Amino acid sequence: MDTIEQPGESRVWKLVLAYDGTEFHGWQVQPDRVTVQGELRNALARVTGEEVLPQGSGRTDAGVHALGQVASFALAAPIPEANLARALNRTLPDSIRVLSAARVTRDFHARHSAKSKTYEYRIFRGEICPPWQARYVYALHAPLDVNAMQRAAARVRGEYDFTSFAASDPDRLERGSTGGSPDPRTLVGTFLEVGRGNLRETEIPAILESRARERAGPTAPARGLFLVDVDYASCDTVS
Amino acid sequence: MDTIEQPGESRVWKLVLAYDGTEFHGWQVQPDRVTVQGELRNALARVTGEEVLPQGSGRTDAGVHALGQVASFALAAPIPEANLARALNRTLPDSIRVLSAARVTRDFHARHSAKSKTYEYRIFRGEICPPWQARYVYALHAPLDVNAMQRAAARVRGEYDFTSFAASDPDRLERGSTGGSPDPRTLVGTFLEVGRGNLRETEIPAILESRARERAGPTAPARGLFLVDVDYASCDTVS
Repeated sequence: MDTIEQPGESRVWKLVLAYDGTEFHGWQVQPDRVTVQGELRNALARVTGEEVLPQGSGRTDAGVHALGQVASFALAAPIPEANLARALNRTLPDSIRVLSAARVTRDFHARHSAKSKTYEYRIFRGEICPPWQARYVYALHAPLDVNAMQRAAARVRGEYDFTSFAASDPDRLERGSTGGSPDPRTLVGTFLEVGRGNLRETEIPAILESRARERAGPTAPARGLFLVDVDYASCDTVS
Repeated sequence: MDTIEQPGESRVWKLVLAYDGTEFHGWQVQPDRVTVQGELRNALARVTGEEVLPQGSGRTDAGVHALGQVASFALAAPIPEANLARALNRTLPDSIRVLSAARVTRDFHARHSAKSKTYEYRIFRGEICPPWQARYVYALHAPLDVNAMQRAAARVRGEYDFTSFAASDPDRLERGSTGGSPDPRTLVGTFLEVGRGNLRETEIPAILESRARERAGPTAPARGLFLVDVDYASCDTVS
């Protein structure tokens, strides 16, 4: 059903994006660097003629991929939903795809409205990593105690102050997500230390309590990390 | 069983290689260009200290991938079979992998000894091509009559003078394979013209007979093509 709109009223859009992060300097716009947010802004300008900076659900690091990143922005032009995704996909590089574009309620914001995010980290365990997987996995031949890693992961389930698992790189410290969220690469890097036998899974609670980043493991490589999806309250989409 | 070898006798090796061709200027060594053959030569020099130019079963174009390219070369050093592949894989970029390295009889040559080659061409037919497939497929949304393409392909089965299906680019004309072999990208480009309805499959025999490259279809994009494997007589490998 069409709604009656005031002339000049801007429309808020929600995009779901997939991208191969290998050749981008992360999500966030930076001067003289190719970023996902920058490419999306440029494509929106070419398609609509409007200068808008799409807001992501959060930044992703250089080399991190997305199966379902979410971005929001307002456009003045009344563009049919079906056309925007198609026009953007014709304009964007192959390494960024708009999976869906939908009109949403005016108060929707990709970051502020997010309830939770799901990440996946892919580790390749075979002897020879096929070249077409190399950009999307951490290839690791060393023995790993996967059961111990699962037990370590179970120890961080729940609500905690995740300062110990924050990003260590100052440039990554002010990640967009809500305060207290852990950095997925720090969590994975710590679980890998458990898997390698360098850390006991029973030490995880003490690391959490210490609120000291240096107690956690090293940062796992970006290439294995995928932002799978971002959850929102279901009422945000205009029907 | 070990064979008794003369001191100083050089050993011929057969490598099976997989590579992602996207970032290489094809197989063949070129000045100031990054090529698969050049990277392999450099890795062999670093690993063995010997300057050898590995011979491929044939050149692959820039952007063409390999699941099973074969290369041969002779080394003076007596390297255990298990060690060479591992050492090369530690040295080569992730986009090139040595799947196997084996000692072969002295008369083995990756190109001259080849009996046949198998190629695969991947066309993505969905609406949105995932970014991690974009380098490895030709994404084509237009309607295609796949049955007509299959019938067109059946018309080139057999032994012919494939001049009409040679590579059109002068730089690609002198491809290494045996005389009369068709260029896979020209074949696929022609079958796609049939699939799109621009050419009838019944015209294929006349195109073959014309021996005129301009009668065939355009060259299909490199990114969809994989060299799957190269067949040799089975007696070439030293047991």
